[in-house]
Amino acid sequence: MCELLGMSANVPTDICFSFSGLMQRGGKTGSHRDGWGVAFYEGKGCRVFHDPDPSAYSEMAGFIKTYPIHSTKVLCHIRKANRGRVCLENTHPFVKQMWGRNWCFAHNGQLKGVKKSLELKNFFPVGTTDSEHVYCWMLEKIESKFPTPPKNDKQLWKYIEILAEEVSEYGVFNFLLSDSKYLYAHCSTKLVWLTRKSPFGQATLVDEDLMVDFNDVSSAKDVISIIATQPLTHNEVWNKAEKGDFLVFRDGLIKYQSS
Amino acid sequence: MCELLGMSANVPTDICFSFSGLMQRGGKTGSHRDGWGVAFYEGKGCRVFHDPDPSAYSEMAGFIKTYPIHSTKVLCHIRKANRGRVCLENTHPFVKQMWGRNWCFAHNGQLKGVKKSLELKNFFPVGTTDSEHVYCWMLEKIESKFPTPPKNDKQLWKYIEILAEEVSEYGVFNFLLSDSKYLYAHCSTKLVWLTRKSPFGQATLVDEDLMVDFNDVSSAKDVISIIATQPLTHNEVWNKAEKGDFLVFRDGLIKYQSS
Repeated sequence: MCELLGMSANVPTDICFSFSGLMQRGGKTGSHRDGWGVAFYEGKGCRVFHDPDPSAYSEMAGFIKTYPIHSTKVLCHIRKANRGRVCLENTHPFVKQMWGRNWCFAHNGQLKGVKKSLELKNFFPVGTTDSEHVYCWMLEKIESKFPTPPKNDKQLWKYIEILAEEVSEYGVFNFLLSDSKYLYAHCSTKLVWLTRKSPFGQATLVDEDLMVDFNDVSSAKDVISIIATQPLTHNEVWNKAEKGDFLVFRDGLIKYQSS
Repeated sequence: MCELLGMSANVPTDICFSFSGLMQRGGKTGSHRDGWGVAFYEGKGCRVFHDPDPSAYSEMAGFIKTYPIHSTKVLCHIRKANRGRVCLENTHPFVKQMWGRNWCFAHNGQLKGVKKSLELKNFFPVGTTDSEHVYCWMLEKIESKFPTPPKNDKQLWKYIEILAEEVSEYGVFNFLLSDSKYLYAHCSTKLVWLTRKSPFGQATLVDEDLMVDFNDVSSAKDVISIIATQPLTHNEVWNKAEKGDFLVFRDGLIKYQSS
């Protein structure tokens, strides 16, 4: 299995602290050593870093841990390969474009039979993972239903939720997705989240001897939600999503939640 | 105007030396201070770094200068903005996907009236540059003519050449393009290239006090071509492309050349 990390914030925020913790699980405190990737949205643009090396020992990850990239939407993934060999093109998050927007997707779980059952016509995977196949299929379905973005965003949220449930029939489908406007999270088996806002407290990483006092690095109006496969900090209360939960984040807040 | 740098090699090779020289031109030895980007192909995957900051002072560029990423195809660009504001999404090279392949494109020159004249139906730009608009148009034309990759690659080369000439009617169209298999280069006004192979010699950068003896870093069978807007080294002979030249590189060698 893999691990996910997502962030939604109302002001461009760096994710160095949470990222540091997660990266340790890629070969040190965890066995997800088959590559890692992270996508930072910045306006309509997107910075994406991929590396098939274990994150705990990756020079690139080491650089990003100390180089604060400020973003309002971040998706991160560390991989333990099940299907698809360890290589750059099989490393999440996968970036594709639709409606002149960058879409990013990262998946945790195993799906069976999707390549046979979910036929592709317009979006084709670059790599060989089931995850990217399913992502292509979801984009095809969305584009087919909404050739242009729907005026009411809720229509889109509801449709992504329907697709998430449909794919969940093939196996475990925890994912993070962004259309460059919202951050979507779906829980099939394992997903937690928390929202940090004023009054801020302190937190200590589970995987590394690192503590932060968010009062020192935040202003009173900051709102930041962190979504992860497993809690990244000891001394904070993480909300546990249930099977079938679908969450839509924007500006650090949950805009839609269903189960 | 902007500057381009491309590499085609028969073995995965790092571009640290040439990259170091070009990065100086982004704010130090040159005025291309409106961002930079570089794409490294690795198998079917692609690592892409973008930064709207001047390359000469960019921390990210500093990291890449010293972190050897080995690739057989590289596209790099430093920007001096003409059309489209300075931001991440307007930073070349632009990456898009077609046929389940990563396509990258970087452009040097100004084009007039392309947004009005070249209509888009399937591929839409994320940013606001004329360059990305034209790139979307080229992909549409290619996909429309070849819904799947043609069996004979020469058909594709010839068609890209036709499109390059068509776009050139709108202004200056020096570009680098890759479909993850070949590196294409088109000269409208300014483009030079050279091929390094055994027996190797020494070279000194124009923009930085840095010398390399390629005998020390190459093996006898290595073949590497470098394409650039202007020569990057003093003591090597650069071939000068003429207006209308279209070059197709693979494994460090020119596979097709026309003018």
